[in-house]
Amino acid sequence: MNSASLTPIDASGRAGATRGRLHGCDALLVTDLTNIRWLTGFTGSNGWALVLPDELVLFTDGRYDEQARRQIAAVGVEGRVERSRHRAEMTDQLAAAVASVAKLGFESVHVSHADFVRLGAALAPALVPTTGIVEVGRRHKDAAELERIALACSIADAALARVAPTLGDGRTEEAVRNDLEMIMRELGASGPSYETIVATGPVNAPLPHHRPTATRIEAGHTVIIDVGALVDGYHSDMTRTFVVGEPSALQSEVYEVVAAAQRAGVAAVRPGISTAELDAVCRDIITAAGFGPWFSHGTGHGVGLLIHEDPFVNASGGWDLHEGDVVTVEPGVYRGDFGGVRVEDLVQVTSSAGRPLTQSPKDSPCLPSAPTI
Amino acid sequence: MNSASLTPIDASGRAGATRGRLHGCDALLVTDLTNIRWLTGFTGSNGWALVLPDELVLFTDGRYDEQARRQIAAVGVEGRVERSRHRAEMTDQLAAAVASVAKLGFESVHVSHADFVRLGAALAPALVPTTGIVEVGRRHKDAAELERIALACSIADAALARVAPTLGDGRTEEAVRNDLEMIMRELGASGPSYETIVATGPVNAPLPHHRPTATRIEAGHTVIIDVGALVDGYHSDMTRTFVVGEPSALQSEVYEVVAAAQRAGVAAVRPGISTAELDAVCRDIITAAGFGPWFSHGTGHGVGLLIHEDPFVNASGGWDLHEGDVVTVEPGVYRGDFGGVRVEDLVQVTSSAGRPLTQSPKDSPCLPSAPTI
Repeated sequence: MNSASLTPIDASGRAGATRGRLHGCDALLVTDLTNIRWLTGFTGSNGWALVLPDELVLFTDGRYDEQARRQIAAVGVEGRVERSRHRAEMTDQLAAAVASVAKLGFESVHVSHADFVRLGAALAPALVPTTGIVEVGRRHKDAAELERIALACSIADAALARVAPTLGDGRTEEAVRNDLEMIMRELGASGPSYETIVATGPVNAPLPHHRPTATRIEAGHTVIIDVGALVDGYHSDMTRTFVVGEPSALQSEVYEVVAAAQRAGVAAVRPGISTAELDAVCRDIITAAGFGPWFSHGTGHGVGLLIHEDPFVNASGGWDLHEGDVVTVEPGVYRGDFGGVRVEDLVQVTSSAGRPLTQSPKDSPCLPSAPTI
Repeated sequence: MNSASLTPIDASGRAGATRGRLHGCDALLVTDLTNIRWLTGFTGSNGWALVLPDELVLFTDGRYDEQARRQIAAVGVEGRVERSRHRAEMTDQLAAAVASVAKLGFESVHVSHADFVRLGAALAPALVPTTGIVEVGRRHKDAAELERIALACSIADAALARVAPTLGDGRTEEAVRNDLEMIMRELGASGPSYETIVATGPVNAPLPHHRPTATRIEAGHTVIIDVGALVDGYHSDMTRTFVVGEPSALQSEVYEVVAAAQRAGVAAVRPGISTAELDAVCRDIITAAGFGPWFSHGTGHGVGLLIHEDPFVNASGGWDLHEGDVVTVEPGVYRGDFGGVRVEDLVQVTSSAGRPLTQSPKDSPCLPSAPTI
């Protein structure tokens, strides 16, 4: 599989499925660009999609109207594209399109207060706040979407396998980041899935979302590498932790605890488990080992057209996993005296269990001359 | 100048300047992450900044609290960092911090309708919608910010100079994009400023915001390259158009019109000119030549911590340029029968005129064996 032989995305059924979730609204105004992409295939930076009972309309400006027509056709969607010169004209076009709508749903978390006030004044229908209508559809990844995510995972796996043996060579975080991203591009990724994290040493490694610097990787320091690839808009996400040279007793202890928590989390993934329960599976192991206060973030999150999307896996809960979800499982422990350790796989929820999409080794040494802890 | 020898950013006066613009509010809740970065130096993906009369408070989660403390100290800001485990706890902390505030301004274009409703229920003060309070401060780039933008421009210039001679070698859009981004990294950029555009041929070049594909650059086709670098959070933005081989009469005619419009636009930049007037300077030349309908976007936009920021330069107007603004001037013409032509410089508004920060040649042939049109 490579990015040129991917099964085409078929979005033809998505607007129809969305119409079945409108909860009493007559139409839905979709303003979130990721939701618009999922519904229509359109990837521009400015647009609104309007799901009417019998029509899909995409509003955009002159930078994008030709692109929009091509993109919606490419994913099998029938829709009309309206081109405007500025936001006021786009609003007028929307007002005309909803003139006979009574109740217009809008995406309450994706419309600013200012736009809500402005649209309320400009549009005839009652504006009804909604949340998650399109996002619910996005959670269930179809076969073509899973193909892209799995390919993105395998590209990141391959890049890490090529770069890992160089970690003992005294290189900087930035140099390692540059190599990872260049190799992913060579392997067909359109780019990194997010800002690649390479974090080493007592100052940087304790920051879960550290940005690479000119700090050199030294023997005895932990190295967290958090890397993913982007394939046709779909993301992957993986973290591995290394030590150059012999790990200290504390580094080994922390690594074993985090790895055990991560394995237990992956094993617990199944349809029906709540996200709070899954978070607790990982957190309880780390807490029982005495490192609970240093597991300073949630256990994971959904991944798809966004690197962070529903469902979020943390102590707040609020979600149950479903077949078709793709989530990370990524416990970590960060403390100045030993650096940071995080292990993360991307996991597909099948009809009965969790299927890891990440294949990079995590239990055995990865560096020929410098064993992974 | 390189990225290691940049003058440190000094943000110590920014919260104070913001307090002088509160228009009757007692405090301001800043939720836009770019505004938070400008005010505090904090670059995490989750946070709120609260500008109180006598204190600056930054709210974030356990992934970022240590990073936040370091970053605000690094830009000379005094502030308190509050760490929370989830959004509900963050809201409780905010509620406690504003308990004695009567009128709390919020960023109406950066707070979702859903958060507005939620915060209204959770916070004691009256919520007052505001727009542009921090953005006005961000428009005036100080010397340290200009250093970063100028360096980003020179890195993109250097990358394009190295890649331009290869455009006649039958390479793909993607390969050219990969080279440009790798070279910018080697030269010290933290990454591309945005998704680099390489658009060629009758199918791709007419799309102003085309994403690079496996399409090969062929003789006789226009090639639009729109590329910028990112340096310590600050962006650059430039476009040049090439033809491999001898341009057609129509390609030459369109190029001359666009280049003339662009030169006239750069020459018209000065403090006090309205953005509508600047847009008209470019647009009138293109319209007079008969290509008006194919200049399908605005003339430019501000550039700083965002690639697109205030002030926007288009026919809608609404802004006057000020000393310290940094804006693009980028007319373009796109049509299937000749492809696309765009020429773009980044321009600093000085006390009296416009100072181009982009140095790549635009009037003479750039390709030794394949002249630029």
